[in-house]
Amino acid sequence: MLPSELRTSIRCGKHQTHTSGVCQDYVQANLVVLPKEYAFDFLLFTMRNPKSCPIVEVLEPGQFQSKYGKNSDIRTDIPLYHVYEDGQLVDKKQRIDEIWSEDLVSFLIGCSFTFESQLIKGDIPLRHIEENKNVAMYQTDIQTEKAGVFEGPMVVSMRPIPDSLVQKAAEITALFPKMHGAPVHIGDPAEIGIQDITKPDYGDFVGIRDGETPMFWACGVTPQAVALHAKIPYMLTHSPGCMFVTDWKNEEYLQEGK
Amino acid sequence: MLPSELRTSIRCGKHQTHTSGVCQDYVQANLVVLPKEYAFDFLLFTMRNPKSCPIVEVLEPGQFQSKYGKNSDIRTDIPLYHVYEDGQLVDKKQRIDEIWSEDLVSFLIGCSFTFESQLIKGDIPLRHIEENKNVAMYQTDIQTEKAGVFEGPMVVSMRPIPDSLVQKAAEITALFPKMHGAPVHIGDPAEIGIQDITKPDYGDFVGIRDGETPMFWACGVTPQAVALHAKIPYMLTHSPGCMFVTDWKNEEYLQEGK
Repeated sequence: MLPSELRTSIRCGKHQTHTSGVCQDYVQANLVVLPKEYAFDFLLFTMRNPKSCPIVEVLEPGQFQSKYGKNSDIRTDIPLYHVYEDGQLVDKKQRIDEIWSEDLVSFLIGCSFTFESQLIKGDIPLRHIEENKNVAMYQTDIQTEKAGVFEGPMVVSMRPIPDSLVQKAAEITALFPKMHGAPVHIGDPAEIGIQDITKPDYGDFVGIRDGETPMFWACGVTPQAVALHAKIPYMLTHSPGCMFVTDWKNEEYLQEGK
Repeated sequence: MLPSELRTSIRCGKHQTHTSGVCQDYVQANLVVLPKEYAFDFLLFTMRNPKSCPIVEVLEPGQFQSKYGKNSDIRTDIPLYHVYEDGQLVDKKQRIDEIWSEDLVSFLIGCSFTFESQLIKGDIPLRHIEENKNVAMYQTDIQTEKAGVFEGPMVVSMRPIPDSLVQKAAEITALFPKMHGAPVHIGDPAEIGIQDITKPDYGDFVGIRDGETPMFWACGVTPQAVALHAKIPYMLTHSPGCMFVTDWKNEEYLQEGK
């Protein structure tokens, strides 16, 4: 399926689930939408935390078409959205065009789903894709660098990787610095403050078998954790795992996007 | 002289001229100070125009000490400042601490003075330094990419380089992407809209001799031209050529700062 077809399918309510493993050759992105009042602090936050918040695109206030998606509408082309008020998740919505305003600034942030197809091409198995599940995501005790009102813990995604392929997986993902790049941690979850690996804060746990090592990558859900922490009055985001799929090919990204 | 000594000398009014050729082993930076209301648009402008506005550091609103200068004060450690109102240069000041407010956001932007020592080490002569003059800067017809209220022409610095060393100069400066990097134009000034090369818009003309080629690099004065164009109500900047000199060594920058 082409990304434009997927976006149409999402827009008319046919595709309502996560986008892991979908349109594997195309860049996927996280979405954060904030009132302009908070846009400077947040943009500065992303610059200071490029590992968890690598910017793909910043839209002008009120703008909702991404340059990376022909005829796209970031208000309708994501399967599920979160609405946050004062740091609380108050609603989940299938579209946000009805609650849109000209004052809102949208940020598209790189997503690790982008490098998954490259891992699969490198013969590295990804269980959550094999089992058609969302990736597991965890809040850690790794602190982000503060900017204005934004501060708080980094969120990571976890993939169990066969021990013999850990080095290769690290090397492949390092080629995607704008999609979170190399892992931030390999091995013992407790070392980064994850108490119970079987209970992710977002997404689905898929088990870690003998002979496998958990690998952790910075995750674009971090802004949601940080905005919760900062009790931002109003924020819209994608629902973790339900991404904006662009027309930008991974291959093109690898050539030009660094 | 160490940068800290230079900054002290500037602060107490001893050093009152440009900083070209001064503290040659250290990174120099342009300064733009804006009310927070304009900070998001401007930060986005710098992201969209990394060639002319490579960000070295963004300070929090009201903050005036750079992390790249021990005990520094960006309000007093630059030889000369410009005060702009509604797109007009209304004042030049030796310090701006008396007109400082908590609402002001400071941006430090990379400066081509940083790579000049590397050019000299590569046996590439720089006449403005030999003659203790400021570099020549010109407004061009190269358009920047708009962000919010900010749009307008790119400003470039020009250095006449012996024909046989043009390629080498391009290669050396390409190593400094955060200090404007490789030249944006080589040769005929008219091709980038410069009508009279003997009359720079800022700085000093030093002549172009037979056997020399004018080389043009993007310049951190661009934000001043752009803010003029946008008629921003209030902006403070360095005076072109009078830079903020950091404690950051060029060598360290080359290793970590890309």
